[in-house]
Amino acid sequence: MTQMVDLRSDTVTKPTAAMRAAMASAEVGDDVYAEDPTVNALERKVAEMFGHEAALFAPTGSMANQIALQLIVPPAQELLCDANAHVVTYEIGAAAAIGGISSRTWPFAGGAIDVEQVAGMIRPDGYHAVPTRAIAVEQTHNMAGGVVIGMDTLRGLREAADTAGIAMHCDGARIWHAHIADGVPLAEYGALFDTLSVCLSKGLGAPVGSLVVGSAEKIAKARWIRKRMGGGMRQAGILAAAGVHALDNHIDRLAEDHVRARRLAEALAPFGVVDLDRVRTNLVILDLSKTALDAPTLAARAREQGVLVSALGPRTGRLITHLDIDDAAIDRAIDVLAAAFRA
Amino acid sequence: MTQMVDLRSDTVTKPTAAMRAAMASAEVGDDVYAEDPTVNALERKVAEMFGHEAALFAPTGSMANQIALQLIVPPAQELLCDANAHVVTYEIGAAAAIGGISSRTWPFAGGAIDVEQVAGMIRPDGYHAVPTRAIAVEQTHNMAGGVVIGMDTLRGLREAADTAGIAMHCDGARIWHAHIADGVPLAEYGALFDTLSVCLSKGLGAPVGSLVVGSAEKIAKARWIRKRMGGGMRQAGILAAAGVHALDNHIDRLAEDHVRARRLAEALAPFGVVDLDRVRTNLVILDLSKTALDAPTLAARAREQGVLVSALGPRTGRLITHLDIDDAAIDRAIDVLAAAFRA
Amino acid sequence: MTQMVDLRSDTVTKPTAAMRAAMASAEVGDDVYAEDPTVNALERKVAEMFGHEAALFAPTGSMANQIALQLIVPPAQELLCDANAHVVTYEIGAAAAIGGISSRTWPFAGGAIDVEQVAGMIRPDGYHAVPTRAIAVEQTHNMAGGVVIGMDTLRGLREAADTAGIAMHCDGARIWHAHIADGVPLAEYGALFDTLSVCLSKGLGAPVGSLVVGSAEKIAKARWIRKRMGGGMRQAGILAAAGVHALDNHIDRLAEDHVRARRLAEALAPFGVVDLDRVRTNLVILDLSKTALDAPTLAARAREQGVLVSALGPRTGRLITHLDIDDAAIDRAIDVLAAAFRA
Amino acid sequence: MTQMVDLRSDTVTKPTAAMRAAMASAEVGDDVYAEDPTVNALERKVAEMFGHEAALFAPTGSMANQIALQLIVPPAQELLCDANAHVVTYEIGAAAAIGGISSRTWPFAGGAIDVEQVAGMIRPDGYHAVPTRAIAVEQTHNMAGGVVIGMDTLRGLREAADTAGIAMHCDGARIWHAHIADGVPLAEYGALFDTLSVCLSKGLGAPVGSLVVGSAEKIAKARWIRKRMGGGMRQAGILAAAGVHALDNHIDRLAEDHVRARRLAEALAPFGVVDLDRVRTNLVILDLSKTALDAPTLAARAREQGVLVSALGPRTGRLITHLDIDDAAIDRAIDVLAAAFRA
Repeated sequence: MTQMVDLRSDTVTKPTAAMRAAMASAEVGDDVYAEDPTVNALERKVAEMFGHEAALFAPTGSMANQIALQLIVPPAQELLCDANAHVVTYEIGAAAAIGGISSRTWPFAGGAIDVEQVAGMIRPDGYHAVPTRAIAVEQTHNMAGGVVIGMDTLRGLREAADTAGIAMHCDGARIWHAHIADGVPLAEYGALFDTLSVCLSKGLGAPVGSLVVGSAEKIAKARWIRKRMGGGMRQAGILAAAGVHALDNHIDRLAEDHVRARRLAEALAPFGVVDLDRVRTNLVILDLSKTALDAPTLAARAREQGVLVSALGPRTGRLITHLDIDDAAIDRAIDVLAAAFRA
Repeated sequence: MTQMVDLRSDTVTKPTAAMRAAMASAEVGDDVYAEDPTVNALERKVAEMFGHEAALFAPTGSMANQIALQLIVPPAQELLCDANAHVVTYEIGAAAAIGGISSRTWPFAGGAIDVEQVAGMIRPDGYHAVPTRAIAVEQTHNMAGGVVIGMDTLRGLREAADTAGIAMHCDGARIWHAHIADGVPLAEYGALFDTLSVCLSKGLGAPVGSLVVGSAEKIAKARWIRKRMGGGMRQAGILAAAGVHALDNHIDRLAEDHVRARRLAEALAPFGVVDLDRVRTNLVILDLSKTALDAPTLAARAREQGVLVSALGPRTGRLITHLDIDDAAIDRAIDVLAAAFRA
Repeated sequence: MTQMVDLRSDTVTKPTAAMRAAMASAEVGDDVYAEDPTVNALERKVAEMFGHEAALFAPTGSMANQIALQLIVPPAQELLCDANAHVVTYEIGAAAAIGGISSRTWPFAGGAIDVEQVAGMIRPDGYHAVPTRAIAVEQTHNMAGGVVIGMDTLRGLREAADTAGIAMHCDGARIWHAHIADGVPLAEYGALFDTLSVCLSKGLGAPVGSLVVGSAEKIAKARWIRKRMGGGMRQAGILAAAGVHALDNHIDRLAEDHVRARRLAEALAPFGVVDLDRVRTNLVILDLSKTALDAPTLAARAREQGVLVSALGPRTGRLITHLDIDDAAIDRAIDVLAAAFRA
Repeated sequence: MTQMVDLRSDTVTKPTAAMRAAMASAEVGDDVYAEDPTVNALERKVAEMFGHEAALFAPTGSMANQIALQLIVPPAQELLCDANAHVVTYEIGAAAAIGGISSRTWPFAGGAIDVEQVAGMIRPDGYHAVPTRAIAVEQTHNMAGGVVIGMDTLRGLREAADTAGIAMHCDGARIWHAHIADGVPLAEYGALFDTLSVCLSKGLGAPVGSLVVGSAEKIAKARWIRKRMGGGMRQAGILAAAGVHALDNHIDRLAEDHVRARRLAEALAPFGVVDLDRVRTNLVILDLSKTALDAPTLAARAREQGVLVSALGPRTGRLITHLDIDDAAIDRAIDVLAAAFRA
């Protein structure tokens, strides 16, 4: 059977041979006792990359995000984020259901953020209204098509947060792509946030794992929250070894994924389904509203031809390039999708 | 000492002599056993007014809202409301912290609601995204200045909710004012919602109490939730008697409060602090952004002159007319506030 | 129709004429703004009675207990109490579901408490085990039949709590009865606990209301929690006036209820259904395990004869004397119940 | 440096060479999409071993337990377990804080369970008392020293649960040891419970992972809960491969761990610190109450001599044998601990 061209998500990547070798020879210990040398090394490495004191390994990006939110927003207090943010969309209500965190959202505008609008939503401490405790942003923004939030916007939000005395969290599942696309050093991003979550198992290609990044005090508390959420694994060094390998070998190569996404987008643009301005990293959002196809139909037809596509909504599809997508795969995807649009 | 003119809220009203007499002679029983005849009568009366099967007495509007939300949104699932809704602003994070309810908000636009925008935010059931379970609206809208949401908008939202198979809740703390202002029968409002909360202790002047309104099945479950929240009172008929009296005597007279609010607004409009289009009921929002005064300063100066005003934000004040505000009080408030603006 | 003799609970008492008069003439204000003079007076009065700095009015004993527990046990930490304690039995899971409070229980032994056993259950702070933060006791103990916990036991628990650096809460719904039965001053009880809840609507005969008692700092925080739970009422002075009246007039008379409960118990003892040693206050537990009657059957037969009895379990009944039970009512209850046991 | 003899826990085992090879060559996919063939194979294998329809992989035993509890106990309802059960002791309050689950505990008696006592604690459905929904037992019991709960006891509990119409959960982190010690087939255990959690990373020696076992319907819901808790990993087949290897190769060998634990216990028994009757599997609890040593001191002294011991409490130590403890390690541990007791 021919290999599928899987453009549904960059979470589908499989570990490379070199990464498997790194896992097979990883030195391990019991990470609940903080005795796994490979996990400890990974945590130090990531903390340093973002200029923070500490980091904590977690089994998923969702857990890393939720641990971070619980660190900065007490129960019954408030988080602000955009209406399509992963933390309120794809984490199964955990912020409210587990953290007791109240949320209000600013309107999603394709990744663009109106700093004034966000600042105007912040509510101060007091007896009557729910006080706002944190703002979360997503870099790059998944549902916005991998758009990179610019430093000016981030600095504006940070200023508003500082004025109000509240925290900022970055859902940095794909912050590596922002770094590659805009050339902003990771530590410059790190300096703007109280907490970040970063992911090893999306663009970077590791099988499992994310990290929460923050101050030593926060991360000490995060260990306790992680255990409560069921994330205190034992010889996690097996997974951390893949993460270290990915950080050492798979960041710079994201540029290739961006080039391929761009090529894909440009080939499909003539069908009126792509906003090229928003194709900045490894995501391509397909807006099918002006075509005869709905997203599930497109996904089904492409699947028959060996190409996997995500249907995010009735008329919205998503393509993501990653480690396991080469130029030939892009050629094939273009052929299959173009044929579908032509039909 | 002269009596203060208290325009901070309609929650400050004191029971009238007739209302006190009704309370003093109320027949009572143990309402935890559903044996309080006056509570039972009040619940039947309110259910009938809104054309629903049943209603439940609760000590506060916040508890009535939160019981209703727990009835229609399971933990980890989603409520949509506007960013200034009472349920996510002034109820101390209860929806998330007690109900585990995730919330996203549409942008506040002075009470106006873009039905398309709300409909577009609804997320369907599924494994990945948090499913939307309910939409909440506030009638009249407190932070919008007592604006009445029109029947066309409400019907549009109901249609969107029906299409998606989700519920609608009305925070009807001041639904009586909407009914008086627009002449819409209460049962017409009732027909549009799965659950409503209505309040006896704001415009209607009772000392304590709100009700949750809904189907018999929902209200049976609501009794259990009310007890968990600590709202299962005993001889609550004392309070219910005031409620029955208020419903019988204080609804039609709200028209007077509306006239007085309008007179107040028109007198202050020349100072550029009032949007007359939004003064529809008993609230007047003061926008001080073009004056030299901030809201706390205005409140402090007015207080010195015997007039109490709410400071909702740094540059936002609020005046509310009610049962204890007569024409003379309005005259005095106009004198004091106009003088402050002139200074 | 003849008046029922209602021995199900002391929550069923109806306000006396004098109490109704106090309510009718109560001075009131908006208690959410802390401006209700009668509520404020009641709170000061109760705080002083127990030798604490402050107190807060709440609509129910369940809410008062749950506010107190949230004050002393953070989410995910631990409360110890007995397996039949009201706080884990009759408050609809609120401690866990609202406060996120983990609980472990010591075995119920008819109200007797083995201090060593409780002390041995306390777990210290640390990374692995859930830390114990508080011990709760119930005075008098409802399911134990109104048994009074002696000062030696309470002092022993306090010592164990102090050694471990944890808090003690008293569910004092019927602490007035303990005070009357044992002659211990209320302030002596107060001195042993970080928080207490005390109830106005059980033995004391007020229609509605309980208070949380504690330090000024705790009570300030309690106001915020009360609002989140939906307990921030407005002109609650109506209810508080009944409470003040009850405190002034209905404490000493509890001795009569105790005498009547004793007389009832002694009359039924020959049927082998009462443990006279445990009848210390106003409760009589009926153990039907050696009779041919189950509790629902007994309750149904007695009801036909105009006497209301609680069925706590299949073979357990409960009788409670109170303000609305006079000597004639006791005579009638004895006649009816004795006849049922003879049959 | 000499290798430490680590008897603190069987969680510290490191993957064997064969297990590493299995991981290195594991076929993987995206398990959030249920497309990881190795995870799917592991889940089927474990479900079959216990005679259930389905199973779900989770990163830790705590998460597996907590998912199971959320499946069988709704928020605000009740779980019964013993006072030293892992689910209320070592899972950081998750049952209450995440699941909103109320808990009451029966007294810990060294692993012995009084079925009558447990049955007597079950509370039926109803408006007043919190209904009991499930009983949890721990097989083998960690804090009881690895004691095996006998089939008669388990069948008695199951009968009580069936009579009441409630569920049973088995925290089977070390159920493999019970199976080896008593020779009871795993499927016989499986038949007694609605849900089980079983662990791969304790006695079985895999680096990471546990499973929830239950009906197909429950496990479908469990996937959703797992994602909310942050346990939806991607190419988890790497870990699952170790689990499959462990199931195939490391169950029968647990008998060796039991023999070694017994040898250790017998060697230390003369010092009056071991109850030999309770040494049935791979745990040895040290009761230091009659010695001059407290547990932290013993642990510190042993550590200096290269032997690691857990201090569970001030006077309680714990030794656990496992895959990485051979006969020589036991000899060394006996020498070091005996010397400490003699001193």
